[in-house]
Amino acid sequence: MTRTSTLSPAPATGVDATRVAVSTVIFTLRRVPGSDAASVVLPLVRRTRDPHEGLWALPGGWLDVTEGLDAAASRTLGETTGLAPSYLEQLYAFGAVDRSPSRVVSIVYWALIRPDEIPDETVENVSWFDAASLPRLAFDHNHIVDYALWRLRNKVGYSRIAHGLLADEFTLAELREVYESILGRRLDPANFRRQVENAGTLIPTDRFRTGSHRPARLYRYNQDVELSDRGPLDTRH
Amino acid sequence: MTRTSTLSPAPATGVDATRVAVSTVIFTLRRVPGSDAASVVLPLVRRTRDPHEGLWALPGGWLDVTEGLDAAASRTLGETTGLAPSYLEQLYAFGAVDRSPSRVVSIVYWALIRPDEIPDETVENVSWFDAASLPRLAFDHNHIVDYALWRLRNKVGYSRIAHGLLADEFTLAELREVYESILGRRLDPANFRRQVENAGTLIPTDRFRTGSHRPARLYRYNQDVELSDRGPLDTRH
Repeated sequence: MTRTSTLSPAPATGVDATRVAVSTVIFTLRRVPGSDAASVVLPLVRRTRDPHEGLWALPGGWLDVTEGLDAAASRTLGETTGLAPSYLEQLYAFGAVDRSPSRVVSIVYWALIRPDEIPDETVENVSWFDAASLPRLAFDHNHIVDYALWRLRNKVGYSRIAHGLLADEFTLAELREVYESILGRRLDPANFRRQVENAGTLIPTDRFRTGSHRPARLYRYNQDVELSDRGPLDTRH
Repeated sequence: MTRTSTLSPAPATGVDATRVAVSTVIFTLRRVPGSDAASVVLPLVRRTRDPHEGLWALPGGWLDVTEGLDAAASRTLGETTGLAPSYLEQLYAFGAVDRSPSRVVSIVYWALIRPDEIPDETVENVSWFDAASLPRLAFDHNHIVDYALWRLRNKVGYSRIAHGLLADEFTLAELREVYESILGRRLDPANFRRQVENAGTLIPTDRFRTGSHRPARLYRYNQDVELSDRGPLDTRH
């Protein structure tokens, strides 16, 4: 029985009109004015040309033929927003035929950043939006943000959330408040503490937060957990 | 401050010589002859042309401009190997600049299949290899298999392993043997039972496996867990 072999010569250019882009979802927390609550926000870039001129879109751009995917994500994020997170993770490749007027496969990256990692400068055509109440975005970018939010809520462990969104040391109450912001609901403090301790991904320190409340132990994230997340993928791939 | 807007007009063809391919890692278990153990195996396709003529490669091929990524993965897997798993999951996009003589971004899919899902027919230039002792493969495909194995060992829950590799109902001993094959080491039966029960992703039935041993309860995988795994991604994306 004869079947097509893998990776036969590429189709002639013109037939194979698929192009590769990268986009990035950057989540951080922003305190809601006049409230104890925080909301998950992300930067969007207003499009200045068609398709979808005037709509907001995820930061991104075309993959250059001489750069790797990770490098393209970092470069285009920096060019459009000025942001330079220390680590971008690949989220998913979106390639539906009808997601753009021409055929575009977008490799989407994401990162969690702390508010203090955001430069003070204002960047033209860039604004931060509450992830829970976005306008209609360009292309399938609403769908992409929905997927990223789902991953954030369901798949991201305590250590990575803490590393991405909190200072180096934090109390369990501070971590719980971050989770409450992400999930959009209150969590029982005792249950939360038990879950975090069982997960074993945070390391208690000998230091305590003191102030108006009774002293609360400070924790730090477990870097071993964080670094193992990509497994055998090094930064070249 | 002015920065480049996202998705400006695509670079002229020829500059943007990046092409998109899909490849698939299919894992199943094969009993080691003369032994109680099983090993994780995957199908590879021998390349019949350059680059890397004669080397073994993952099943795959070029993305057609008129098909989605999932469809391309299913089509090229079927064309090269005759396999048609009910569900392929996107694993990762590999796009290092030097992974192929020309610039190719490969969107890699994967699936776990039961031995009874493999057609009996022999397919030309296709062979099944022990994932733990592969020859040198074409392109970066050794690296891709290493990453898939790492994901299988670290990130795939009891329910999905059971669904992918076992019959509809199975004993905990059978599930443990599957895990032992994947991890390459023995697991303590009592600890394993406790972990599975705590995970809550398998559903005990009222049926028992009887035979030479004392009756063992049969379990089935929790379909709710399985189906939630892709979150808001539907099959079009």
